[in-house]
Amino acid sequence: MAVDIKSVLKQKSALIDSEIKNYLPATSSIIRLELKELNDLMWEYTLRGGKRIRPGLCLLSAVAYGGDEKTAMPAAISLELFHNFVLVHDDFEDGSDERRGKPCLHKMVGPELAINVGDGVYAKVFEAILLKKEELGSEKALKLIKEMLDLTYRTMQGQHVEISWMVKNKFDQKFDDYYFMAEHKTSWYTACYPIRMGAICAGASDEEIEKITEWGVPFGLAFQIQDDWLNLAGDEAKYGKEIGGDILEGKRTLMLIHLLNGLEASEKSRVIGVMKKPRAQKTQADVDYILGLMREKGSLDYAKEKSKELAEKAKEIFERNSSAMREGPEKDAIRSLIDYVINREA
Amino acid sequence: MAVDIKSVLKQKSALIDSEIKNYLPATSSIIRLELKELNDLMWEYTLRGGKRIRPGLCLLSAVAYGGDEKTAMPAAISLELFHNFVLVHDDFEDGSDERRGKPCLHKMVGPELAINVGDGVYAKVFEAILLKKEELGSEKALKLIKEMLDLTYRTMQGQHVEISWMVKNKFDQKFDDYYFMAEHKTSWYTACYPIRMGAICAGASDEEIEKITEWGVPFGLAFQIQDDWLNLAGDEAKYGKEIGGDILEGKRTLMLIHLLNGLEASEKSRVIGVMKKPRAQKTQADVDYILGLMREKGSLDYAKEKSKELAEKAKEIFERNSSAMREGPEKDAIRSLIDYVINREA
Repeated sequence: MAVDIKSVLKQKSALIDSEIKNYLPATSSIIRLELKELNDLMWEYTLRGGKRIRPGLCLLSAVAYGGDEKTAMPAAISLELFHNFVLVHDDFEDGSDERRGKPCLHKMVGPELAINVGDGVYAKVFEAILLKKEELGSEKALKLIKEMLDLTYRTMQGQHVEISWMVKNKFDQKFDDYYFMAEHKTSWYTACYPIRMGAICAGASDEEIEKITEWGVPFGLAFQIQDDWLNLAGDEAKYGKEIGGDILEGKRTLMLIHLLNGLEASEKSRVIGVMKKPRAQKTQADVDYILGLMREKGSLDYAKEKSKELAEKAKEIFERNSSAMREGPEKDAIRSLIDYVINREA
Repeated sequence: MAVDIKSVLKQKSALIDSEIKNYLPATSSIIRLELKELNDLMWEYTLRGGKRIRPGLCLLSAVAYGGDEKTAMPAAISLELFHNFVLVHDDFEDGSDERRGKPCLHKMVGPELAINVGDGVYAKVFEAILLKKEELGSEKALKLIKEMLDLTYRTMQGQHVEISWMVKNKFDQKFDDYYFMAEHKTSWYTACYPIRMGAICAGASDEEIEKITEWGVPFGLAFQIQDDWLNLAGDEAKYGKEIGGDILEGKRTLMLIHLLNGLEASEKSRVIGVMKKPRAQKTQADVDYILGLMREKGSLDYAKEKSKELAEKAKEIFERNSSAMREGPEKDAIRSLIDYVINREA
């Protein structure tokens, strides 16, 4: 069945926007000035908006597995809060300047306060689940918390690998190194765990939940590669961030690894020389130079192709592994979402 | 009954040291080099040792409330891991150089990796409780997780207040501002929650647990003031850290607030001028100047006196509020510990 996935996502996003406010303590009840500020900063990224893809996926999965949105809402909110916690710390770790059209938190208040704010947000990830533990029941609540912990550890592993490359100035990654890093940094928490957690809320069996991982991981990888592709080849007006940011930040994307693999030694060391420069020293000419080479050597097309292959693989496994999902608009939406993540423009 | 509290603490500390290893994944099972490194870094602070006062208190409380050490061990370990997570992030936020006689984590590997390592450790705080959820039962496990979340949020509030003062160069604190900050930053997680969590493991009633807070908070405050006092007036050989570190870091201690309150305008602005200097620009003469004034104006004695008063208040409430604890070596040890924290030299 044809599904207007953009409108489904918009509807879920509006639902999350209205629900998430119930999980944020009102600043008006706080007397001490510094704590009012802490409270505001904790919800700064969350209230800037966002696509809410992770909580949306969680709600769709819950209904597809025979549950309901109300029971799955705490898990959905906790995933969105986790995402916002990750962004606060990652923006600092990556040396990013802007997030959702405004300065990054560490640029607003300095890294010391920003890191602490992120820690506060992370505690709220679990609080969201505990707030509704009566409705969920203790067993499901504990299962969801365990998912959140596994997801955190995997995400931190991916982040550690990526930052290690940056800090140690390493540029000898193979394709598999990228896949390992991106899978850990993104796939688990963006695709796999949201769907798993929705299924847990619906009471799906452990066996069914394990089946999700098989297609959730390639689905998440396809999402990340498209994200990297948009960062270098997207339409700035639609994408909403400056194009080429990953080159400024020195990120080891699939496109960069493809490019380095295809260059002869002298050009390769020239590219590495540019990528190694600190962000503040990189010029628009540097970005254009790398982007031009990526276009010339087919690196952008290569990544686009890989993202398509991964999405196709995910869809194939999805069809085999999702017999416990009931047919209906939610299952159709998840199916469409796998295509959508590689065709999206933002 | 007289208790040799130092030897009790030593015995608990040895027990924690041997047990905590069961909660650390073995690096030998990890193939990827970067992840071996992440694993090692996650346990770096934990394996440097420490007084293990928080887990020790948790175990003593569990037995005093009629439980046993085995059931309380996951809660004890999670408190120690929380402490180590806090240290990683705080050392960065405070701009500290050394921790337990070695370089701070952000000095070893840079702040980007260190913050991420801290995040990984924090997830393990909850993992420790979940690992033993069968033995604890779901209800107790969820209660302990809730304690951990409340404790995190309070600690982050205290930390936010303190860093705000530093970042905004504020020096107009009143005594109550210090107490609020120190109570949030330290008292809850150092004294109050370890005892509460031990009692929860032992199955104490909610009413009994609330009674702990009344004496746990002044107990924790006494601990923190003594900590600050040792930092400025301790014996370096016994204390194990450089004396005057809090002056180098510009900390608003009770002693500093007392000093500023007692100075006339010109001397006051001279002191603030010195305290405001970045750490790297402060000289030994600066530290000696502030320390000399503190001695002269009785600021060190004032703090020592306050710490004693708080410990006495804690002991008085303890005697009233601890009738549910059975009399025996554990209750005696907790009683002695309240005196010990203000008499300790390290």
